[in-house]
Amino acid sequence: MTVGEIAALVGGTVVGDPQTPVAGVSGIREARRGDLTFLADPRYQPFLATTKASAVFVPLTVHEAVAALIQVAEPRTALFTLLKKIQAEQAWRPNGIHPTAIIGQDVTLGNDVVIDAYACIGEGSTIGDGATIHAQVYIGRQCHVGAQTVLCPQVTIRDYVSVGARCILHPGVVLGSDGFGYAELGGVHVKIPQVGTVVLGDDIEVGANSCIDRATLGATVVGDGTKIDNLVQIGHNVQLGRNCILCGNVGIAGSALIHDNVVFGGAASVIGHVEIGAGARMAALSGATKDIKPGQTVSGFPATEVGRFRRKEVALRQLPDALSRIKILEQRLAQLEGNLHGTPKDDS
Amino acid sequence: MTVGEIAALVGGTVVGDPQTPVAGVSGIREARRGDLTFLADPRYQPFLATTKASAVFVPLTVHEAVAALIQVAEPRTALFTLLKKIQAEQAWRPNGIHPTAIIGQDVTLGNDVVIDAYACIGEGSTIGDGATIHAQVYIGRQCHVGAQTVLCPQVTIRDYVSVGARCILHPGVVLGSDGFGYAELGGVHVKIPQVGTVVLGDDIEVGANSCIDRATLGATVVGDGTKIDNLVQIGHNVQLGRNCILCGNVGIAGSALIHDNVVFGGAASVIGHVEIGAGARMAALSGATKDIKPGQTVSGFPATEVGRFRRKEVALRQLPDALSRIKILEQRLAQLEGNLHGTPKDDS
Amino acid sequence: MTVGEIAALVGGTVVGDPQTPVAGVSGIREARRGDLTFLADPRYQPFLATTKASAVFVPLTVHEAVAALIQVAEPRTALFTLLKKIQAEQAWRPNGIHPTAIIGQDVTLGNDVVIDAYACIGEGSTIGDGATIHAQVYIGRQCHVGAQTVLCPQVTIRDYVSVGARCILHPGVVLGSDGFGYAELGGVHVKIPQVGTVVLGDDIEVGANSCIDRATLGATVVGDGTKIDNLVQIGHNVQLGRNCILCGNVGIAGSALIHDNVVFGGAASVIGHVEIGAGARMAALSGATKDIKPGQTVSGFPATEVGRFRRKEVALRQLPDALSRIKILEQRLAQLEGNLHGTPKDDS
Repeated sequence: MTVGEIAALVGGTVVGDPQTPVAGVSGIREARRGDLTFLADPRYQPFLATTKASAVFVPLTVHEAVAALIQVAEPRTALFTLLKKIQAEQAWRPNGIHPTAIIGQDVTLGNDVVIDAYACIGEGSTIGDGATIHAQVYIGRQCHVGAQTVLCPQVTIRDYVSVGARCILHPGVVLGSDGFGYAELGGVHVKIPQVGTVVLGDDIEVGANSCIDRATLGATVVGDGTKIDNLVQIGHNVQLGRNCILCGNVGIAGSALIHDNVVFGGAASVIGHVEIGAGARMAALSGATKDIKPGQTVSGFPATEVGRFRRKEVALRQLPDALSRIKILEQRLAQLEGNLHGTPKDDS
Repeated sequence: MTVGEIAALVGGTVVGDPQTPVAGVSGIREARRGDLTFLADPRYQPFLATTKASAVFVPLTVHEAVAALIQVAEPRTALFTLLKKIQAEQAWRPNGIHPTAIIGQDVTLGNDVVIDAYACIGEGSTIGDGATIHAQVYIGRQCHVGAQTVLCPQVTIRDYVSVGARCILHPGVVLGSDGFGYAELGGVHVKIPQVGTVVLGDDIEVGANSCIDRATLGATVVGDGTKIDNLVQIGHNVQLGRNCILCGNVGIAGSALIHDNVVFGGAASVIGHVEIGAGARMAALSGATKDIKPGQTVSGFPATEVGRFRRKEVALRQLPDALSRIKILEQRLAQLEGNLHGTPKDDS
Repeated sequence: MTVGEIAALVGGTVVGDPQTPVAGVSGIREARRGDLTFLADPRYQPFLATTKASAVFVPLTVHEAVAALIQVAEPRTALFTLLKKIQAEQAWRPNGIHPTAIIGQDVTLGNDVVIDAYACIGEGSTIGDGATIHAQVYIGRQCHVGAQTVLCPQVTIRDYVSVGARCILHPGVVLGSDGFGYAELGGVHVKIPQVGTVVLGDDIEVGANSCIDRATLGATVVGDGTKIDNLVQIGHNVQLGRNCILCGNVGIAGSALIHDNVVFGGAASVIGHVEIGAGARMAALSGATKDIKPGQTVSGFPATEVGRFRRKEVALRQLPDALSRIKILEQRLAQLEGNLHGTPKDDS
């Protein structure tokens, strides 16, 4: 798209070359050439002089930058408007119930439900109004899929699992596979039956190929509004709060208790039975081996409060030098002791 | 479920409120409110006074705890009885061969085999007695699936792969995709044909969306009784022993040799061509860059014997303080040297 | 296979027992019993005396080793010849268009395209000459699949995604799921529409269950010849160069810019918006939190130039000892000060 086309879509005014091509969206600091960005917070105004973005949504009061400008009343709103307009143009939904869909006995379908080719829905499940079941989805028996929820192609939901309203499950998601539990008897791992389930609240998104295991007994729970990225593993009996963010490759081991508004950076891990307080933030690649306090930001493995983690990293960088300094101290001290006593002193 | 219902299922006696609700199962130390736990080992008896569990299976000799009690002859057996009873109530298996299943030429089906909707089985494969092939499974040509083995929906098994008896492969498992092998020729990566296979023994469980690659030549092997959690990656030509445990997100690179009874904590990794001795334990998030001795427990990256790892961690915590102490030592020593010689001494 | 059979396949001469069994292929240093290896570079000749391999492809000039030898004109070529011959024997491709394949309106199919059972192809997509779409694959609307490309069973490609020629996508791969982007409004995460796409170049391989997200706007791009292993996560708007290697469990967060010929060891991670220079190498389990220079090799988390990383590791091993030495220095110095002044000096 060009800056001119984008301005037309959102009703903005171009300052600069309307033919400037735009290929991505990014924050004003991290933007690269070809990106569109936006100035929502006046504190970021200095970045207008340095951004590598090709185009910037700016308030009407801004006239100058190193990139093409699109002047609009509210830059953030303009970006959403743009993306939503494009989304509306692309929007597509399969139609009705495909004749190849296999729908078990006593399945209840709400109004305006779509079920695409080769999807299978087990006995006794209920599908809410306006839900979209894409091709090749598998839904087991006695499941519930909430209103307006979208199951992308090749999602698997096993028996008894419940998914709330307005959720999006991306391709390859698996809900309700068995939890990983064994009892060792004479060197052999005997499977502990996993007879619980998985309950997802409303407005949850689960990324491609992520897995959420069923509980041993009771339910593995994900709270309303929590967003989960791709290739994330949620163990059995985990309780995930509301409005959490889990970036890609995160792993949460069994029975961890995660309160509301927790943010997990990419590949962060939580050991089983650990509790993470509300609003805590785990940096990318961190690993929590014990409880994390509410609001705390942690980094590293074992996960440490981030200030302490950074001091440790700074200290580590000085360590090779410190080792040399210790050696020099020992030599100087030995010499001094020798001078005073005639021979080097031996403390050993 | 309530404590009363559970007691009725296992033939136990309630001490406390039979209306107490139970929603999960956990160990006595890590249990939370709503959990059911059990006292199997008398050494854990002190935890009866502190456990947060709502209910405990206890031997007939125990009468008091901070939770509701269910007195039974053998607590561990009672737990299994409970879970198995619930499992039996939930148990369900598709029926016979679904008309939409596509079964290639010369496929041999044992007695009581179930093949559900839209499953595909390639030419010349054999399916053992009592095996269950769920909906949308793909099995390639010349494969073998052992007796009583369960392939959950959307499992993919590629040509020539062999799976033993009584295995469970959870949704999205991929067996026999190509190993990751290339030869660099003039800056281009030329694919090395991967013409080996994958051989799984008996009583193996593989978690959702885990992958086991075929060997370059020969076979990637998983030994009897080994249990693999979700999102685990096993590279080509890996030899995995018997009764190993691999928690979620583990990665084992190509040609690693893992002996029997090795335990991998979550997200543990093994570099290619490394050997892990029998009974070794790799802590969560550890990464083995060289051979690990039998029975050794390791942690961290690069993986270190756990005692040494802990001493290193303790020492690390003292490092910022140690740096200050070095500085003070230098000042004191310089002053002392100055006092003795009239001017600060310079060793440089 | 036996050494004799292999020699016959490649036209080599056996020195040693032709009945020696061979089960795998490996490098000469890391080979184990049962492996076949090869001597291509004369510098590796000393390993002929120590290799654990059971058989070695050697040039005609080599006559002695601890393993069976297969003399050939060019050892590396012989290995490829062997693997390709076995591959040709195993080679199999489904036939034509399976009657259960669902092909949308205005789909363009090239010559010699194969589409297997229960595959779905959305409206307006184009499939190039000689492409193979295996069973249960899902291709969305307006997609492009290049000539000779192979989509293994249960691959999912969502709308508008483009895949080049001669690519191989292994089972469970997901291309074009939504990028992970939200704007926080009043404590709630509002989804940012992801209206971009994914563009794969030519000669790309993507391992089982790996995921590549669509861009917010524009395209997530993978360059020609790049090879991606299993369970790899590529975030939205990532730009991956040509001929890169990404081993298993790698995670690249959104908008990272990866230049050509970069190598990622297993489970290496890159934080969002970071730039990795051409030819850089990230060791297994490393995590890049800032830009990496072209050609640099980094290790650890946060990723550090490998020489510095090793010095840090060596220093760390000396740390517990260094702490003792500091204590001793303090004692000796205090004693010295006491001797000189009558009482221990206090610096605090």
